[in-house]
Amino acid sequence: MRAEIITIGDELLIGQVVDTNSAWMAQRLNEQGIELYQITSVHDDREHIIAALNEAFNRANIVLTTGGLGPTKDDITKHVLCEYFGAHLIEDQNVRAHIKDLYKDRPDVLNRLTETQWQVPDKAVILENRVGSAPLMIFHKDNKILASMPGVPYEMEIAMKEQILPYIQSKLENQKSQILHRTMQVTGIAESSLAILLDEFETNMPSGLHLAYLPKDGVIRLRLSSYGELTETEMARYFADLKALVREYLIAETDEPLEMIVGRLLTERHQTISTAESCTGGKLASLLSKHPGSSAFYYGSVISYDNSVKEHMLGVPAEMIQEYGVVSEDVVRVMAESVRQQLGTDYAIATSGIAGPSGGSAAKPVGTVWMAWATPKGTFAECFHLGKLREQITDRACLKALVGLLKIIHQQA
Amino acid sequence: MRAEIITIGDELLIGQVVDTNSAWMAQRLNEQGIELYQITSVHDDREHIIAALNEAFNRANIVLTTGGLGPTKDDITKHVLCEYFGAHLIEDQNVRAHIKDLYKDRPDVLNRLTETQWQVPDKAVILENRVGSAPLMIFHKDNKILASMPGVPYEMEIAMKEQILPYIQSKLENQKSQILHRTMQVTGIAESSLAILLDEFETNMPSGLHLAYLPKDGVIRLRLSSYGELTETEMARYFADLKALVREYLIAETDEPLEMIVGRLLTERHQTISTAESCTGGKLASLLSKHPGSSAFYYGSVISYDNSVKEHMLGVPAEMIQEYGVVSEDVVRVMAESVRQQLGTDYAIATSGIAGPSGGSAAKPVGTVWMAWATPKGTFAECFHLGKLREQITDRACLKALVGLLKIIHQQA
Repeated sequence: MRAEIITIGDELLIGQVVDTNSAWMAQRLNEQGIELYQITSVHDDREHIIAALNEAFNRANIVLTTGGLGPTKDDITKHVLCEYFGAHLIEDQNVRAHIKDLYKDRPDVLNRLTETQWQVPDKAVILENRVGSAPLMIFHKDNKILASMPGVPYEMEIAMKEQILPYIQSKLENQKSQILHRTMQVTGIAESSLAILLDEFETNMPSGLHLAYLPKDGVIRLRLSSYGELTETEMARYFADLKALVREYLIAETDEPLEMIVGRLLTERHQTISTAESCTGGKLASLLSKHPGSSAFYYGSVISYDNSVKEHMLGVPAEMIQEYGVVSEDVVRVMAESVRQQLGTDYAIATSGIAGPSGGSAAKPVGTVWMAWATPKGTFAECFHLGKLREQITDRACLKALVGLLKIIHQQA
Repeated sequence: MRAEIITIGDELLIGQVVDTNSAWMAQRLNEQGIELYQITSVHDDREHIIAALNEAFNRANIVLTTGGLGPTKDDITKHVLCEYFGAHLIEDQNVRAHIKDLYKDRPDVLNRLTETQWQVPDKAVILENRVGSAPLMIFHKDNKILASMPGVPYEMEIAMKEQILPYIQSKLENQKSQILHRTMQVTGIAESSLAILLDEFETNMPSGLHLAYLPKDGVIRLRLSSYGELTETEMARYFADLKALVREYLIAETDEPLEMIVGRLLTERHQTISTAESCTGGKLASLLSKHPGSSAFYYGSVISYDNSVKEHMLGVPAEMIQEYGVVSEDVVRVMAESVRQQLGTDYAIATSGIAGPSGGSAAKPVGTVWMAWATPKGTFAECFHLGKLREQITDRACLKALVGLLKIIHQQA
């Protein structure tokens, strides 16, 4: 049981849009025990789309396409699919009613181009796109299935969850294998050293078990995978063995983003956090408030990008900035303690660093970041050197902030 | 002159990693006048990689691969490329010296796995990976080129900019065509209505000119493209014609992110901005501080996620929250004016909304966002309904905040 994804759109191939859809769809397919074999991005071009369809059907029995379903001339997916499956366009009364309802408050949108959206291929099963005007289309071919969805991420996500996946499941029951992935996260060890540490474990793994190393920004995700060959119990045993081997570097037993793990720990302990950010400029705040339920533990932040804000809102003495510089242990300690006290939270994290490209010096080059954690049991500070690229520096700083906080929460538990 | 990208890694096909590399590479290729025909993501699997290489070489004369170059067992790209090109691994003294230097302060990393990184194919041109241990490899085959790079984004980006692109340019000079893309951004009109407005323009375009519509979160990017058929002057003329047609909806004449356009406008005018965010939780601050040079116009933010922070740091009266609710015009006005006054900036933006999934009511459903812009000429507020999904709501709120600010800056200029 294999699936492939074909993403259709010139915007992908000139780099105007990052394809976030495929990773999301891949996760859902894996959860359902459907292996995703390949992802292919092609142009809004008849020959190109047809070639990609032929190749994908040669390798897989489920083909999912996204994109090219808008009402404008550059979008041609529906017409190409009609040609490919020998179908003709007919008016669909359900889709028509749905679109009329969708735009009932916006008569300007009910124009002749929008009306083409209720023209659908006569050989397709049509499913409702609850949040948009492009209908979802499913074609059958020699026991294989093609599903066509819009490329707008939230339309695609709702379509997959509510319509496409349930449809595929109903048609292909009993053909699925149990795909298992388990991931843990470690830090403080080089990838090659970790691989040497795990050499014996890897050598002794059964052939149906796979181990992957995914390093990023100083955290390595270790993933065990099985495609139908191991039971959940067996997987759990190997996962526990692996965990025992990396215990001293372990920071998470799941693949969840660290801010989610932090959030769950704080919520369980009825504890709260605030931040005072300079170089990370709100990125840390944005992570901490990203997931549902964050209002239970996240109070807020003072983003003190300009020094005047550090002085007036966080009480950092001007002389301290003068003497030690704004990227210094003294300054981040005051920032963290001040925001913790003013916002009345259990923890607070402060960052101050040089994100570049300018502002570096010999003593404090671009990438230098001071960080402090104010906690119920005192304030801790650390200096990091996080590379040379602006976005990488701020991403890594957020990760270091969360890793540091995780360690502190565990130590103080 | 066509290129293809093959991204190699199981993590892409189980959705553990979003492929951001391809879009970045696509932009660079287009800038160089090289058309990117297809992007293919494949497993860390010998047969799969070989099949993808064969197909890509059938369609294109430049093949760029990323990923699979780590020192661990799951990474097999180098070995598969050796097999594919009939090469053998030999020790490279330059790579050896580079890696020894790279890890001179980390003797634990100079282990037997890292040592495999200076084994390189004897038929490849080896280029230096300045920031990592995996050497860059270039293979030639029947006048075609394959370049293999690491999958870690910043390693790939430095490799492409400093090594791979200059190498390709030197080998393929005179084979390039002039690819031109020009993009503008419009808002306040439905995609289908826009297409009807532009119907005559589209009908009369020369065959070498393409128009694409890219709608996202209420902003539509309109892109004109030409692959070698138009001159820059001709392109500029069509772009001007298009601009005249959409003038009343136009918010930007480039494809740049709106926060970058805002930043440039403010910097030019020597004006500054601060934010007071509730539902956007730092995302707006993070956008405004994202790009180099933001310290010239961005002062900081008070992220008042919890109501206590709105009261104590922004002076929102508790009775006001009680009477009108925290998501209300009165509250966002106070937030914006307070942060503007406290941080001493020219502009300030405040957001307060219900990002969900919980917290909605009949009167104020999930997706309701109040926003205020405090300016030198008074404070403006507006209420939006931005959908049902948490991330979509906060993304759209940031976009509305920036679009509103752009309009205000232009009006007050």
